Amino acid sequence: MCTYFSPAHKAVAAQLRDWMGAAGLQARIDAVGNVIGRYAAAADNAKTLIVGSHYDTVADAGQFDGRLGIVTALVVAEHLHRAGRRLPFHLDVIGFSEEEGVRFSAPYLGSSAIAGRFDENALARRDANDVSLATVLRKDGADLPAIQALARRPESLRGYLEVHIEQGPVLFENDLPVGIVTSIAGSARFRVTIQGVAGHAGTVPMALRRDAAAAAAEIVLEVERRCSADSNLVGTVGQLSVPHGLINVIPGCCELSLDVRSVDDATCEAAITDILAAIERITKRRRVTAAVRKLARHRAVPCSPQMQSALAQAIERTGVKTLHLASGAGHDAEMFADLTPIGMLFVRCGNGGISHSPLETVTAEDADIAARVLLDVLVNLT
Amino acid sequence: MCTYFSPAHKAVAAQLRDWMGAAGLQARIDAVGNVIGRYAAAADNAKTLIVGSHYDTVADAGQFDGRLGIVTALVVAEHLHRAGRRLPFHLDVIGFSEEEGVRFSAPYLGSSAIAGRFDENALARRDANDVSLATVLRKDGADLPAIQALARRPESLRGYLEVHIEQGPVLFENDLPVGIVTSIAGSARFRVTIQGVAGHAGTVPMALRRDAAAAAAEIVLEVERRCSADSNLVGTVGQLSVPHGLINVIPGCCELSLDVRSVDDATCEAAITDILAAIERITKRRRVTAAVRKLARHRAVPCSPQMQSALAQAIERTGVKTLHLASGAGHDAEMFADLTPIGMLFVRCGNGGISHSPLETVTAEDADIAARVLLDVLVNLT
Repeated sequence: MCTYFSPAHKAVAAQLRDWMGAAGLQARIDAVGNVIGRYAAAADNAKTLIVGSHYDTVADAGQFDGRLGIVTALVVAEHLHRAGRRLPFHLDVIGFSEEEGVRFSAPYLGSSAIAGRFDENALARRDANDVSLATVLRKDGADLPAIQALARRPESLRGYLEVHIEQGPVLFENDLPVGIVTSIAGSARFRVTIQGVAGHAGTVPMALRRDAAAAAAEIVLEVERRCSADSNLVGTVGQLSVPHGLINVIPGCCELSLDVRSVDDATCEAAITDILAAIERITKRRRVTAAVRKLARHRAVPCSPQMQSALAQAIERTGVKTLHLASGAGHDAEMFADLTPIGMLFVRCGNGGISHSPLETVTAEDADIAARVLLDVLVNLT
Repeated sequence: MCTYFSPAHKAVAAQLRDWMGAAGLQARIDAVGNVIGRYAAAADNAKTLIVGSHYDTVADAGQFDGRLGIVTALVVAEHLHRAGRRLPFHLDVIGFSEEEGVRFSAPYLGSSAIAGRFDENALARRDANDVSLATVLRKDGADLPAIQALARRPESLRGYLEVHIEQGPVLFENDLPVGIVTSIAGSARFRVTIQGVAGHAGTVPMALRRDAAAAAAEIVLEVERRCSADSNLVGTVGQLSVPHGLINVIPGCCELSLDVRSVDDATCEAAITDILAAIERITKRRRVTAAVRKLARHRAVPCSPQMQSALAQAIERTGVKTLHLASGAGHDAEMFADLTPIGMLFVRCGNGGISHSPLETVTAEDADIAARVLLDVLVNLT
């Protein structure tokens, strides 16, 4: 597991920086751990095109989520450097330090800093060992002004591109190596704590129980039922636990997470409204209480038509059929949508689209096609 | 939390031993941590009456579960000693070291050793830190022969009595301080591990998911539904968790515990059969798998009619109305049922019968009545 500023995470950052340096880029690690390799334009005052993705991972992750995009950008930049081919813009290959939000339940820590939208409230967030993000950053000398200084000005940017494994089954089922992302789904995240009454598992009659886990179970199934009603919608309870649960004690507390997503904001809102109402109904009937905390709400983010068109032309020139698809997952790209035109290229996910799992795969052939498409876009972009 | 051989547990043992010594008993701690205080009969070759309960606790426990019975026996023995009143049998006040089964998922470690039915398979059980029971015991010099040597011979015993908080609402609702236990419910415990397929929370359509937590949720509700069908039956999922669950990952695994109890063995068996069939049905439909492991099965244990009668007469002499009730909880007493006549006196549980919770209460008045009843039984038992 490569979570923010863990030993594994720092080792990956150093490795990426070294690879970038060896590829002929001006490489450095910034205040929040982003690894940046610049392939400079001839003119110092040129704009910058960012091509990036993240190098942190979830637990028990696959090998390609995030990292495929960094390595693809890196080999393309190395190819340009070796060929001595200058671009009309600086090319910044960026390995973002944090996208998954695992350690501090705060995603996009790396990309949000560079996009100038770092959420300073995140500094107070604490990890599982009760260490705050502020403490972790301070250890490496990064305070809020240093983080804010990382923000790029919109007028300095030419655009943003990201290559990423699809993490779903669409390209796999259409038998295509790559696809053009039309928009990134909006998402909402909540944490729900159910409080019931603990009691002895052998002595409290079923009718008198106020079992927090039974209430949580009903909520899990309600999330599943409601989100199955619309093909544009998904809902997930990824975390579920009875803290300090014992085999012979009726659960007095149960905690769960809720993640709802849709490419259509209204669909997402309607589902959230219904699920929150169901939580209230279920807990009231069971005489337990629910504390619902909203962790995040991201609206759906469209990709730039110009970048979609540039990607489509490059894919056609590579001899591959073009396919447009929405992204159910969030990506660093969405941080930049208000600053500069963004584009995303998805790469086919093997094993029927399994991701966030060691079963996640990408073939070398598909990765090669993605690199050729990215190279084509870069050399044709003005 | 006072779990087996934790620092808190060892401190309680030392405290009990000191109290027993100060009360005039011959006090010692045995190889598995039981604290034994003997008030000897005049004749060395007299039989022994054991009056005991346990001093370990669940997490977030009440103050009375187990300990009330030890302290009640202790004050009665002290009273007899101070009054210089000898009994026709040795009185062994025992604080059993382990009844709840928290640390090693193996209950009755203390009482089973003295009853000569210590399960040697328990030695291989491991706690949450992967330390085996054998390792824990070896540290204090207790190996299997030493444990087996603790067993009492049936012909050496006069009987077994236990005072215990009811941990349920029956005495509370009948407005009575104490009651006579007719039998101890049988119970079965299982651990269920659901294996599904992890995946990205944003990209896998609901219909394609094999969500382990959703399957577990359905099982939790099925346990609740099935066990609500019979007033002689209770069923509890006390432990429920998605190991290493993440907010944005579809659960690939979910673990739960199952505890089913009834004073009627056939009722218990029928419920278990139905629940195991439901688990198979649910997991098959959801294309996930369930590994079901039976941890324990205890049949219902009747209390001795002779001891029930002795308790009833003592309660009547105390001027209290007698009430007979079954025990939904398991107790150390059941370990001795095959060796010697057992009897149990329940004491009213306040707050409507809440136990295994800090809300557990007993009034001083009720505890006093319990002590008087126990004293009466002892001085009238031949």
